[in-house]
Amino acid sequence: MQNFELPFIPDRPVKPRNTGITMVMDKGLSLREAENFIESGAHLVDIMKLGFGTSYVTPFLKEKIKLYHDAGLKVYFGGTLFESFIVRGMYDDFKRLLDKFDLQTVEVSDGSISLPTDDKLNYIRDLAKNFTVLSEVGSKEAGIIISPGKWIKMMNAELEAGSWKVIAEARESGNVGIYRANGTAHTLLVNKILNKVDKDSILWEAPIKGQQVWFIKILGSNVNLGNIAPHELIPLETLRLGLRGDTFFDFLPESNVEAFKL
Amino acid sequence: MQNFELPFIPDRPVKPRNTGITMVMDKGLSLREAENFIESGAHLVDIMKLGFGTSYVTPFLKEKIKLYHDAGLKVYFGGTLFESFIVRGMYDDFKRLLDKFDLQTVEVSDGSISLPTDDKLNYIRDLAKNFTVLSEVGSKEAGIIISPGKWIKMMNAELEAGSWKVIAEARESGNVGIYRANGTAHTLLVNKILNKVDKDSILWEAPIKGQQVWFIKILGSNVNLGNIAPHELIPLETLRLGLRGDTFFDFLPESNVEAFKL
Amino acid sequence: MQNFELPFIPDRPVKPRNTGITMVMDKGLSLREAENFIESGAHLVDIMKLGFGTSYVTPFLKEKIKLYHDAGLKVYFGGTLFESFIVRGMYDDFKRLLDKFDLQTVEVSDGSISLPTDDKLNYIRDLAKNFTVLSEVGSKEAGIIISPGKWIKMMNAELEAGSWKVIAEARESGNVGIYRANGTAHTLLVNKILNKVDKDSILWEAPIKGQQVWFIKILGSNVNLGNIAPHELIPLETLRLGLRGDTFFDFLPESNVEAFKL
Repeated sequence: MQNFELPFIPDRPVKPRNTGITMVMDKGLSLREAENFIESGAHLVDIMKLGFGTSYVTPFLKEKIKLYHDAGLKVYFGGTLFESFIVRGMYDDFKRLLDKFDLQTVEVSDGSISLPTDDKLNYIRDLAKNFTVLSEVGSKEAGIIISPGKWIKMMNAELEAGSWKVIAEARESGNVGIYRANGTAHTLLVNKILNKVDKDSILWEAPIKGQQVWFIKILGSNVNLGNIAPHELIPLETLRLGLRGDTFFDFLPESNVEAFKL
Repeated sequence: MQNFELPFIPDRPVKPRNTGITMVMDKGLSLREAENFIESGAHLVDIMKLGFGTSYVTPFLKEKIKLYHDAGLKVYFGGTLFESFIVRGMYDDFKRLLDKFDLQTVEVSDGSISLPTDDKLNYIRDLAKNFTVLSEVGSKEAGIIISPGKWIKMMNAELEAGSWKVIAEARESGNVGIYRANGTAHTLLVNKILNKVDKDSILWEAPIKGQQVWFIKILGSNVNLGNIAPHELIPLETLRLGLRGDTFFDFLPESNVEAFKL
Repeated sequence: MQNFELPFIPDRPVKPRNTGITMVMDKGLSLREAENFIESGAHLVDIMKLGFGTSYVTPFLKEKIKLYHDAGLKVYFGGTLFESFIVRGMYDDFKRLLDKFDLQTVEVSDGSISLPTDDKLNYIRDLAKNFTVLSEVGSKEAGIIISPGKWIKMMNAELEAGSWKVIAEARESGNVGIYRANGTAHTLLVNKILNKVDKDSILWEAPIKGQQVWFIKILGSNVNLGNIAPHELIPLETLRLGLRGDTFFDFLPESNVEAFKL
């Protein structure tokens, strides 16, 4: 859907798609707010994450999940909820919860807890039998540094175990995992990951505009990005399409660039 | 209300309650936005503050106040409006305004004005006859430092004069009063206050997530917190319940913590 | 529209007005969100900017523009969209687009592109025949510094060419053009501009509260301000009226100030 014709706008894959994915974080929208979001953005978004444990207290949760499903979107509980069940030894209850809410997508993560690699991979293998699995690599804790080698090893092992995508952790605030405390990306880490992990299989959490711009400039319009705030979905799409200042010249032919670049 | 069962979730008092209170700041929501907020959050919030002087220009104000009242919420004008009447010598007009809008709750503050202690206490005493009074201590001005002794003296005097709760000032931006310009808390000041003032009688303004986490870690799930943005209500509740990374291990039994802590 | 009477509230011109203008940036509101905004704020806002290239992907665009027009608001495409057509050599298509969406207002800018002065003035002259033109001065690029003399020359030339207002660039983030990277204003630059350009003909982008306060303190309640987020419209109006802490004493008689100032 677009309101008018313009040449030199990057192609975006048709949904449902495997690349160029946008994941938005819903932190507790009301039903009507979810409807408003769907009206303005369903054609641009692929996945709704019901952030961390908000699903525990959000009213009309089942109805909201149905709204998103009816709009063609994947929906899943934020990984912190998975971890809340694991830390209590309630994995089977978690699986029943997925069924109760008619979910077909699930996140496996260890952002707040320490989970032996084999356990994490087993959860992924088990859930991948019946669900689309996204698994997350990286800690929510500010001080914890994971070596590039370990990032790569975990990501590839989790994809092999059945994850559809691996998520690179950044939190809602965008200041841990692949980013420094000030929000700028660990360039060397990201480059090393990109050398060894299929780029289309990674979904980068990028809640801050500068992070979105950075990834689009490196990996193009169809990089997979997540943790986008609902009202930042359309602005992000303009970045992907070169219709905002930050990426204005990135997708234009050289001749147009030369004539007009500052 | 909760969507599923989980053990080791902190108890929250049933509303109307005296502790564990959340106060949300409405800076001019439309009627439908207020309805959306009520749908998703009325079970989690106790008090709506109509921020500073926004009530002067917000349409359908009486209808909105009724919506909140019907949802079981306390509603009051932000203290700046009280001060706007006081600075003009119009205290009686202010009381008539409370009646005109069917308010049962009121804030007495001196965040922008200099008010002799006796005058402030007299306003509290007078209003406490007919209203639930919240009184605020602390200046909105960045440079003004109040000694811990004075904070304590004022808080206790105001509670004695009839305030239901005393509010510790932080503004919408969370960078004055009990916080430094960078938003971190004045730990020593807060501790001294807690030594001498009943903790359940204090409502801490804590608009920034780090401030909410800090108070929950010190005072537990049922600390009274205020100046919460409408869309941050559900995320705050997850912090209170240990369902977000920041407080994930704070309410779990030691054995679960040991097995999974990073 | 006001909910009660208070003396010493600054006069605001009746709409449609030439000064005291507020321009709000819509980055992709849904139809219902636009209706909510109109319900709570139409009496306070003058102009809606459909930010940068968001119009390309926003659903129900024509319907939304009609909603705003019916509420008595000017509506225009953010300058980045104008530049997107210019850089592709599609000026005539841009004019057809304005007609297709029934727009009567248009922005001419060179925030992302390099445009010879004569070309920019010609676009303004041509569009001013049929549209209300706002033209923007200043670069979106962080490193680019324009001398005060050039700001003044461009602003006056563009006004002479037919611009209704000239906009001083700051972006949505408020950290370029007339502001430093940290968001504080270039005081000397602004003062030099004010010495040589009619102040009522300038619309200052001021997305951050501190910037709004700064301009209100220098130029009064009826300074023209823009790039206001939808939910910050009512808070901004309280700043203009002296009903928020930051401007609380700015419009009161000296005697009231003396009696109560901190």
